[in-house]
Amino acid sequence: MTAADPAPRRGRGRPGYDQAAVVRTAVELFNRKGYDATSIGDLAKELGVTKPAIYHHVTSKEDLLRLALDDALDELTAVVTGAMSDAGSSSAYERLRGVVRRSVEVLVAHQPAVTLLLRVRGNTPVEVEALSRRRWLDDRLAALVRAAAAEGALRDDIPPELVSRLLFGMVNSLVEWYRPEGVFDASAVADAITALAFNGLSR
Amino acid sequence: MTAADPAPRRGRGRPGYDQAAVVRTAVELFNRKGYDATSIGDLAKELGVTKPAIYHHVTSKEDLLRLALDDALDELTAVVTGAMSDAGSSSAYERLRGVVRRSVEVLVAHQPAVTLLLRVRGNTPVEVEALSRRRWLDDRLAALVRAAAAEGALRDDIPPELVSRLLFGMVNSLVEWYRPEGVFDASAVADAITALAFNGLSR
Repeated sequence: MTAADPAPRRGRGRPGYDQAAVVRTAVELFNRKGYDATSIGDLAKELGVTKPAIYHHVTSKEDLLRLALDDALDELTAVVTGAMSDAGSSSAYERLRGVVRRSVEVLVAHQPAVTLLLRVRGNTPVEVEALSRRRWLDDRLAALVRAAAAEGALRDDIPPELVSRLLFGMVNSLVEWYRPEGVFDASAVADAITALAFNGLSR
Repeated sequence: MTAADPAPRRGRGRPGYDQAAVVRTAVELFNRKGYDATSIGDLAKELGVTKPAIYHHVTSKEDLLRLALDDALDELTAVVTGAMSDAGSSSAYERLRGVVRRSVEVLVAHQPAVTLLLRVRGNTPVEVEALSRRRWLDDRLAALVRAAAAEGALRDDIPPELVSRLLFGMVNSLVEWYRPEGVFDASAVADAITALAFNGLSR
């Protein structure tokens, strides 16, 4: 969130939110109460506007969910397609380290949307579509791990499928505890994750 | 689950579940539909019994949640207190590796209950109590990481607080993808996690 973003809580009771601010507050509510338990009425109350004011920006609760999930998925997809397009110029190992680092940056910058994405269970068509996009990402990441292993850059006693799960499991776990106002910035966390994963904790 | 456990799905339409089977089915429903969106009526329907048959075993939906969360928390607490009581006989580094390994085994053996635990957001008194027990565990694990770092056994360029978050973040990520019927058994996953975390992926 940049300094120019409106702060939804401060604006309580005032009309005039843009779509991004409505989506941001919806994501916060979905993460706090659960998607199923949140209604458009809850969102209107949180923003201090009427339900028709919400429907001015989005057609349905599911539309809000789609906008929020696309925010996270578009960024993560850009990271993965960027690594794929660098295939001619750097090793799979270097690209894998780069993807890990940039994934951490995306998670930190889009934490509420990524949190929502990681909780999706596939109860609605929008969630099924998001799960399909996540699977595409997971498959590309697993292929990158396999390519790094094939180069001989990775230890060969852990199957690449398991490496991919654990590596991005560790990255994704950030959404559970990372706090932007805390002592660790995105760069420190990205350094720590790459050092731990590739070089290990032991001295 | 042992071979002696009743299989709830097979028993559909028949009365006579024990409390453990009711809790197991409730956990499955909570994980699938979300706790807030699941009613005792849904559970009765899933088990093919009447609502009073459910209330024979538990007093409320929150009681079911407490029993399920305690299942996960009691096992994880046993792992951590076991490591604390070994303090005289082995190094903090060895105990930390042991805790990582045994945590993986608990997650695999109690995956549905641990999944539910990791999704708890603190909306009810039972959830607040579970979060407080999780915090106690996290604090003990962070202390163990600090002790291993103080021994000089861990690299010193990652703060111990961050090591602890990432290490157990990777362990906890198992609940998102591990499938007991898949190709990796608990022992293979425990080996992979300890090798990746302590010795790193790079050759």
